[in-house]
Amino acid sequence: MDSSGSSENVESRVHELNIKEEEDMNIGEIKKEEELSVEQIFAKKEVPSWKKQLTIRAFVVSFVLSVMFSFIVMKLNLTVGIIPSLNVSAGLLGFFFVKTWTKLLERSGLLKQPFTRQENTVIQTCVVAASGIAFSGGFGSYLFAMSERVVKQSEKGQDGFEYKNPELGWIIGFLFVVSFLGLFSLVPLRKIMIIDFKLTYPSGTATAHLINSFHTPEGAKLAKKQVRELGKFFTFSFLWSFFQWFFTATDACGFQKFPTLGLKAFDYKFYFDFSATYVGVGMICPHIVNVSVLIGGILSWGIMWPLIETRKGHWYAADLDPDSMQGLKGYKVFIAIALILGDGLYNFTKVLSQTIAGLYNKIQDRKAMHLPVAECSSPVAKTLSYDDQRRTQLFVKDQIPTWLAIGGYVAIAAVSTATLPHIFHQLKWYHIIVIYIFAPVLAFCNAFGCGLTDWSLASAYGKLAIFTIGAWAGASHGGVLAGLAACGVMMNIVSTASDLMQDFKTGYMTLASPRSMFVSQVIGTAMGCVISPCVFWIFYKAFPDLGMESSEYPAPFASVYYSMAKLGVEGFSALPKECLKLCYAFFAAAILINIIRDALGKKRSWFIPLPMAMAIPFFLGSYFAIDMCVGSLILFIWQKKNKAGANAFAPAVASGLICGDGIWALPSSILALAGLKPPICMKFLSRATNNKVDTYLGS
Amino acid sequence: MDSSGSSENVESRVHELNIKEEEDMNIGEIKKEEELSVEQIFAKKEVPSWKKQLTIRAFVVSFVLSVMFSFIVMKLNLTVGIIPSLNVSAGLLGFFFVKTWTKLLERSGLLKQPFTRQENTVIQTCVVAASGIAFSGGFGSYLFAMSERVVKQSEKGQDGFEYKNPELGWIIGFLFVVSFLGLFSLVPLRKIMIIDFKLTYPSGTATAHLINSFHTPEGAKLAKKQVRELGKFFTFSFLWSFFQWFFTATDACGFQKFPTLGLKAFDYKFYFDFSATYVGVGMICPHIVNVSVLIGGILSWGIMWPLIETRKGHWYAADLDPDSMQGLKGYKVFIAIALILGDGLYNFTKVLSQTIAGLYNKIQDRKAMHLPVAECSSPVAKTLSYDDQRRTQLFVKDQIPTWLAIGGYVAIAAVSTATLPHIFHQLKWYHIIVIYIFAPVLAFCNAFGCGLTDWSLASAYGKLAIFTIGAWAGASHGGVLAGLAACGVMMNIVSTASDLMQDFKTGYMTLASPRSMFVSQVIGTAMGCVISPCVFWIFYKAFPDLGMESSEYPAPFASVYYSMAKLGVEGFSALPKECLKLCYAFFAAAILINIIRDALGKKRSWFIPLPMAMAIPFFLGSYFAIDMCVGSLILFIWQKKNKAGANAFAPAVASGLICGDGIWALPSSILALAGLKPPICMKFLSRATNNKVDTYLGS
Repeated sequence: MDSSGSSENVESRVHELNIKEEEDMNIGEIKKEEELSVEQIFAKKEVPSWKKQLTIRAFVVSFVLSVMFSFIVMKLNLTVGIIPSLNVSAGLLGFFFVKTWTKLLERSGLLKQPFTRQENTVIQTCVVAASGIAFSGGFGSYLFAMSERVVKQSEKGQDGFEYKNPELGWIIGFLFVVSFLGLFSLVPLRKIMIIDFKLTYPSGTATAHLINSFHTPEGAKLAKKQVRELGKFFTFSFLWSFFQWFFTATDACGFQKFPTLGLKAFDYKFYFDFSATYVGVGMICPHIVNVSVLIGGILSWGIMWPLIETRKGHWYAADLDPDSMQGLKGYKVFIAIALILGDGLYNFTKVLSQTIAGLYNKIQDRKAMHLPVAECSSPVAKTLSYDDQRRTQLFVKDQIPTWLAIGGYVAIAAVSTATLPHIFHQLKWYHIIVIYIFAPVLAFCNAFGCGLTDWSLASAYGKLAIFTIGAWAGASHGGVLAGLAACGVMMNIVSTASDLMQDFKTGYMTLASPRSMFVSQVIGTAMGCVISPCVFWIFYKAFPDLGMESSEYPAPFASVYYSMAKLGVEGFSALPKECLKLCYAFFAAAILINIIRDALGKKRSWFIPLPMAMAIPFFLGSYFAIDMCVGSLILFIWQKKNKAGANAFAPAVASGLICGDGIWALPSSILALAGLKPPICMKFLSRATNNKVDTYLGS
Repeated sequence: MDSSGSSENVESRVHELNIKEEEDMNIGEIKKEEELSVEQIFAKKEVPSWKKQLTIRAFVVSFVLSVMFSFIVMKLNLTVGIIPSLNVSAGLLGFFFVKTWTKLLERSGLLKQPFTRQENTVIQTCVVAASGIAFSGGFGSYLFAMSERVVKQSEKGQDGFEYKNPELGWIIGFLFVVSFLGLFSLVPLRKIMIIDFKLTYPSGTATAHLINSFHTPEGAKLAKKQVRELGKFFTFSFLWSFFQWFFTATDACGFQKFPTLGLKAFDYKFYFDFSATYVGVGMICPHIVNVSVLIGGILSWGIMWPLIETRKGHWYAADLDPDSMQGLKGYKVFIAIALILGDGLYNFTKVLSQTIAGLYNKIQDRKAMHLPVAECSSPVAKTLSYDDQRRTQLFVKDQIPTWLAIGGYVAIAAVSTATLPHIFHQLKWYHIIVIYIFAPVLAFCNAFGCGLTDWSLASAYGKLAIFTIGAWAGASHGGVLAGLAACGVMMNIVSTASDLMQDFKTGYMTLASPRSMFVSQVIGTAMGCVISPCVFWIFYKAFPDLGMESSEYPAPFASVYYSMAKLGVEGFSALPKECLKLCYAFFAAAILINIIRDALGKKRSWFIPLPMAMAIPFFLGSYFAIDMCVGSLILFIWQKKNKAGANAFAPAVASGLICGDGIWALPSSILALAGLKPPICMKFLSRATNNKVDTYLGS
């Protein structure tokens, strides 16, 4: 499943490719038993009833992990916006916590219920649902894009633009009224998609493999080792962040501003910033993503921006504020948007056509298949393996009534339609009704496409909403905010729907009941609706410069979303000179690159970069690209030296690096809230400046 | 053997304990074959004649390695003065170079002579003899102590003191006339010491084991792996130093001034300075040395100096220059000297009494043994193992005529007596003759003691010369310089004598001819007499603040030696208030601690620190102690995880770290000579200062 939804789709691809490797690993692990068939190995183990799968301990552990992952996802949202799959960590840590817990209870003789893989799946589902909200809540994108800070920054020098500052109350309310719709919209279709269509859901399948492997004796041993590696790197990464903190008296100090490649390169944001998180992200992301990001960085900050700077005074006014959208920043943001939109449009078209074609085929197959079934069920049963039989049997056992699903959807939609205009007065009730009429179809498309390609298009649907609803509302009626709010509504529905279906796939393969999965998802979503805003609130209060370009937390996608919404409402009038031409070129290039990639096929296109990944450094610079490439390099060398070891432990090491650094955000924001500031500034001065400073300090 | 002589004896102990481990390792490696006996394994391999052992390629490789090791030893001399044993690296790299060379030749069909262990021993001997001069030449101690810089620094505020600045000409001349005496003085006694007395020479034995193991097929495989590890860490350490360089615009910048433990701790020189060298040194030194250094640092900079600072204005004038020997610096230097002298005196007495007792026993044994030998050689031969028989046979085959040895000694002594007063006009010819009359006896004592305990007392004999000759010459006749020069003469003789005997032991065990060993030592010494002064000269010219306390190369022992010489000549008048009492206390404490250590025995005294090691941070601070403890910690964890692996590879890793960082001194001094300065200053400012600087730079 896909906790990250698809901030900027890169995550999904990350996912896709990453998960492939996991699968390989798991397949490798299980192969021997696979010959026996997985469910034959587990045959002797009783499957608990769906109520027994939902234990209190599972939700306690889920809560703890949800808080942790929300911090991590939030930090990633607010720094560069690339969110890798945290499923492996969630699976591993969930297993580790409950296993430790049950072991302790077992020793003291108090254990009532053994730890089953169904319970593990419940935890996994709950954590991913909860931390998914941290992404789909839009704290780094559409939601924060409405804030005064982002609006003022984007509209430098001008006043009178509408904004809506984040507040704990309305954010929680908003999330509660939009996040559950996705769950109810697709529940009735689960049997069709999982059993009849046999959709792959690569991430869901991989997660199921992982959980299954943990609960076989050999799997548990490997899991233990992986947990140990994760723990080691978690500790290292946490301590490293802690150490770094001391030297960060201001945002311009510390390892984050280390001119590793020299001061000149630093000015153009080429440096290694010693971030354990992005080294870890680089280890999880496929090499091509990392390289693409770096290529994008070199293309933009290495070539284009310096060239455009030479046109200063011609293409844009020389006396502009450096943050002005009329100046260089405008080029950075809009060219990136052009790339993102071009890539998004191509993939939207591609996945949608695949979806329709796939759907058509499946329905044909089903018709062909169902005819004999109506007469006699045995022929079908014969074509099914033992695994599939057993899984299907348990999957259809616990039903979720269709009336509950439809009733739930209508009820929540009604509440939502009534409430949302009170939160965003720019968003009218008729906008919302239109969204809710189309939403189930789009949710189905997304869930189906995701099942085929592992690619969640949530953010693409969100952008669709920005442009359509924004244009409909119009500039004079607050179309910008209406568009952003509509984006949030759409993204939440579409993203949770595909998440749910991924989880059903995982549940199907681990014999977890659909009912327990659904309840777990509902509880997880509810947790997420409270945890994520609170986590965001801590960041927002602890770092008063959150969202500023120079800040440790620049939340880069916030201004991108704002600019997109503005573009949708007001057209191209805001763009600086020649920018539109460049945008067209990059929009076309993104589509072209994608066409070439697909034309060459997966194997032969390994050297062609991904336009979406290339776009991110356009406004952020390459520093995190260098971190990620370091991660890639480490993984590459590791794989060269010990392929099996790297495949088994790299995800654990990477997760440890990401989680340790991510969780440091918690104490660091507490320190900031308590007013405790780092004591030392590690400063980097050129030789000449240093002499000046030494003379100044000496005198 | 002992390339490091015994700067401040710590090295010898380092050596002693370190070598034990090497021995263990090698014994572990060879054990299986040992059952067969080493020489039985090698029985089929022909031993080349002594002339064939001295190949040109061996001396080419020796020259390259000698330059490299001279740089390393010089850097260590001039930074903190702790010099670990580099024998393992010399052995490994010598093996590696010649092996690669012969392999290449073999492939091209041009190989005339295979690479034998005898040739390897020749290289080892030559390199160690050459780089030994870098230590015994006194560039970090007695010789540099005579320079204007050190004298002026020690005599702050006063003029008119004699000094003698280093110059390439007289240093090379001086080294040539004193360095060969040690070789000739003991040559006639080699049979008695090696065969009759069967002295252990732990370092020499360990080196022989190492070389033997390299030349057995399994040994070569291990050696290859070790070389690979060494190479890896060499590269890492070199690149790391290179990277650090960029951030060191001034001496106050860069990783070397990283307030790792906070700014307050930094002010008292407690910080980790990211030096690969001292982490490596820490990995080679036994844990107790590292811990002792740290304890010494805490005792001095953590407790005593802050306490003495509170007496400012009472114990010493408040308006003194911070570098004045009348102020806090006086306490630092003289208390350290007290510790060093106390420790030195104790060990001198101990080793000397052991020497006399051992000598008495050996002579008794020999008398008892020689009676039957005179009648028939078979009974003795029977008691000898196959190894010993074969080794003895080859050891006595190639003789070095006694007339050559005595003639050589007398001739060089005559030249030396005539020349030295021209170099140091404070040193009279009768001083020199007295030294040369006593020197052979002292050289014998040192070589014998070293054979028993692996402990070279060269620096103790040097100090003896400082005090006796200094007092004899008297303050009014330049006693300070005379003492220092005498120290040099004495140290060179005594140190090369024990080196030679160690090498004979190695040669004995690898069937290398004593004649080829002697020639190799002579050539190595000659190389060293040229290489070391040149290397020193590069440092001296490249870093104009060499020897200053704030410099990257403070050469701490230079001022210690100067102060000792002054103390010897002028008495205690120069000491600040209460300093003498503290010195007495620490002198007594050093002796007491040693007595307790010896009374408890080796096993039970593991927790008692070494006074000599404790003295070094007294004036330097604890930063390198922290580096070394990090090295210790790494080794400790490694040993916990994989004892065999750590024992086999830790010396290689440590050597790599030391050599890589050490060899960086070469390009760094070339850069400095070329006037290329690092472009960036990595500065550490307190929060408040940083705000001031930011305001200043902003305005």
